[in-house]
Amino acid sequence: MGTMSLAGLASLAARPACADAPPAPTPLQTRGEGAELRTGVTRALARYVVEARYADVPSAVRKEAQRTLLNWMGCAVGGSRHETLDAAIAALSPFSGPAQASVLGRRVRMDVLHAALMNGISSHVFDFDDTHLKTVIHPAGPVVSGLLALSEFRPMPGADFLHAMILGVEVECRIGNAVYPAHYDRGWHITGTAGVFGAAAACGKALGLTEQQMVWAFGLAATQPVGLREMFGSMTKSFHPGRAAQNGLTAALLASRNFTSTEVGLEGKSGWANVLSTTRNYSEITGHLGMSYEIALNTYKPFACGIVIHPAIDACIQLRNQHTLTAADIERIDLRVHPLVLELTGKKTPQTGLESKFSVYFAAALAVVRGSAGMRDFSDENARDPVIVALRDRVVATVDPAVKEEQVGARITLKDGRVLNHFVEHVVGSLERPMSDAQLEAKFLDLTKGVLPDVQARALMAMCWKVEGLPAAAALAAAAVPA
Amino acid sequence: MGTMSLAGLASLAARPACADAPPAPTPLQTRGEGAELRTGVTRALARYVVEARYADVPSAVRKEAQRTLLNWMGCAVGGSRHETLDAAIAALSPFSGPAQASVLGRRVRMDVLHAALMNGISSHVFDFDDTHLKTVIHPAGPVVSGLLALSEFRPMPGADFLHAMILGVEVECRIGNAVYPAHYDRGWHITGTAGVFGAAAACGKALGLTEQQMVWAFGLAATQPVGLREMFGSMTKSFHPGRAAQNGLTAALLASRNFTSTEVGLEGKSGWANVLSTTRNYSEITGHLGMSYEIALNTYKPFACGIVIHPAIDACIQLRNQHTLTAADIERIDLRVHPLVLELTGKKTPQTGLESKFSVYFAAALAVVRGSAGMRDFSDENARDPVIVALRDRVVATVDPAVKEEQVGARITLKDGRVLNHFVEHVVGSLERPMSDAQLEAKFLDLTKGVLPDVQARALMAMCWKVEGLPAAAALAAAAVPA
Repeated sequence: MGTMSLAGLASLAARPACADAPPAPTPLQTRGEGAELRTGVTRALARYVVEARYADVPSAVRKEAQRTLLNWMGCAVGGSRHETLDAAIAALSPFSGPAQASVLGRRVRMDVLHAALMNGISSHVFDFDDTHLKTVIHPAGPVVSGLLALSEFRPMPGADFLHAMILGVEVECRIGNAVYPAHYDRGWHITGTAGVFGAAAACGKALGLTEQQMVWAFGLAATQPVGLREMFGSMTKSFHPGRAAQNGLTAALLASRNFTSTEVGLEGKSGWANVLSTTRNYSEITGHLGMSYEIALNTYKPFACGIVIHPAIDACIQLRNQHTLTAADIERIDLRVHPLVLELTGKKTPQTGLESKFSVYFAAALAVVRGSAGMRDFSDENARDPVIVALRDRVVATVDPAVKEEQVGARITLKDGRVLNHFVEHVVGSLERPMSDAQLEAKFLDLTKGVLPDVQARALMAMCWKVEGLPAAAALAAAAVPA
Repeated sequence: MGTMSLAGLASLAARPACADAPPAPTPLQTRGEGAELRTGVTRALARYVVEARYADVPSAVRKEAQRTLLNWMGCAVGGSRHETLDAAIAALSPFSGPAQASVLGRRVRMDVLHAALMNGISSHVFDFDDTHLKTVIHPAGPVVSGLLALSEFRPMPGADFLHAMILGVEVECRIGNAVYPAHYDRGWHITGTAGVFGAAAACGKALGLTEQQMVWAFGLAATQPVGLREMFGSMTKSFHPGRAAQNGLTAALLASRNFTSTEVGLEGKSGWANVLSTTRNYSEITGHLGMSYEIALNTYKPFACGIVIHPAIDACIQLRNQHTLTAADIERIDLRVHPLVLELTGKKTPQTGLESKFSVYFAAALAVVRGSAGMRDFSDENARDPVIVALRDRVVATVDPAVKEEQVGARITLKDGRVLNHFVEHVVGSLERPMSDAQLEAKFLDLTKGVLPDVQARALMAMCWKVEGLPAAAALAAAAVPA
């Protein structure tokens, strides 16, 4: 499959969905600060979600949703054996209900609510999931974790699943747009705090909530935000998208039984936006609903390490592939890098897999030797691999203030005297240079290796691409469990 | 049993627990604003909870905990048939785990986590539960709902149960003291946001967490606050203490399996106190731990209506009982009231039970005719009762700016010409004039009537008073379910 242009999708997001689409609900005339008492924001968003039709979603947006699904699935399956999930399952499985839904990558089944939690944890545990760069929300975690678990209990066609997912991402990212960066700067982990609305929207759509019920679901979501940034660096960080999925799903389930809530969960005087943020712009929530899609702005991490050394890895892989390089060919590698690179990843002689993630020297050598930088590339074995280590010690990195964060200047000097240069303008995985479908597939296969047999992983991948045609979306979950 | 002096307990709270108690952990030298980066608040609180011994808790504090338990139990059983609980059970029971724990007042059993949620909802649904007046926290809801459900899964003696409950209330109220009123004014429903720590502390103590695990449990609690005040007036308000119980219990369970979190959940730069409040005073959390008990400051509502007309009801009941009055004896009732009374409860001719809660005229007549003002006294039948209505129309209320909110001046003119006067200085249920044990028992019996047979209700009541001697606290839950 060919490379998608995310830049194209982003510009598409600014124009009407299609000529014969029904007019979008009239955007409210609300904008900016001091609008504390205006009503209707929550209701307008609820109405949009309830009335939206899949037929109106442009095909490029559907395609990006498939890419988001594939990336999320790989992360969730890949993270499923992490000790964080071991601890969560050990603690909570005594309280799980019927075996309704799959914990991906494992044979254990739990009730829908617990499965949502567990899959949300595993999809984020490697910090390798998708990113909505405008808000640093990781959109899929809360939305897909809740929705996929629900699909195993409440059957839904693949097209309905994908539509609900698109709407869930729309809701959480619009709400994020309205309060970013003030809300994040205040200390909230926006993936969990906005994500709960996304999960409520997606699950509520799948449950067929009325507009009034969707308003209540958003109120119930508003009152259950998850995630302080203080948790970063502990297991609790990946708990956030999982719990957001579980809380949003709970909100939708309660609302489906007419458990009442406020009319103004988002915009009320003591509502979410006023209490959890110091600034807010409601037009980001209600403006042009149905005429743009935030999922079109989703991005995926190509490499399993901090984003700051992605350009160096990107450049080295490109030179390697273009010139069929091996470590034996290379005299030295010179990198001109952004100042943050040496500040954050200046470790010269990493000894472990974890340490190797903080070494631009190791990462460049790894990129040349293996041609990849996935989860299992940053291993203890590779950190001590003699070929990689020998090349690592011939990498020289120099700070160049003219080089931007998403850039790198790479020069590889070969033993035969040739000098190869490459300057990365926009790193792979950025909006300007999105990962290709093939790159997403390689990442997926790397993540699922050792958890699912290769043939099963490829079948699951094909199912993600063809989700629209699935008679029942639950087949995705079944395919993500080791036979 | 005799009347407890809460004023006495409050003053007791300021002196050492007992002479031979071990020294309390050294209070941290943290105080007030600008202390964002100081560490150790969370750990000091965790250490206290882990190390605290029941033998060090003064008997008057234990007694107040029994009163808190009795009041909570009556509210939970009494609220158990409310439509809010019907909706919650209908929505979530398909996902419940094994029948581990009781939903009080009902025959349905659910897993421990869901039972905690349900009992927390029913205990708050009538707004009739306990109040820590310094913070307006309703302390028992989050703490007892989680702990009692846990006791059915993890057996614990009654004394351990009561101790864990005392510590849970201590933790949530201290945290509340540190941020009140700024946190509440910002829009948070403090019962849910501070309550989650109380539930984590109580359940963590019962689970035997280590100090490190308790620190993590507090971090996991911090990242799951529940409750925006925007939800007041909807079913979601009573969801808050229930969800706080469930979240705190979840936090303790995860921590017991070494699910890691931050060291500084309360005081970290992006921790709970900084993110959820504009002011904070950490000495309220760490000062004099083990030397005072917030549960000694707990209060209980005597009447099932807004607190503003409690003094009028109080005065009329006292005059009625003192002079054995009936409606037929009375020519007129004159009340001198605080201005808010007529502003909020000036309805002259209420037609329904709900409306009757907003009529000081009805309430005064009810008090004389029935001698009580409990849940079932504010009924549609009583609102239309000819004897009450006839007396209601002979009640005259006059605003007197000299009368304080907790006061009333009552004058009853009898048909035989006598005039009876009574001035209420401190309303019953206040810290200065706490409800007697007998009054708490009458409230309990009124709440549980129609849910539990009288003989069972009395047995449950006796069990609350004797909780310290129970071999297994779970007997409380079993006794609160209709046979």
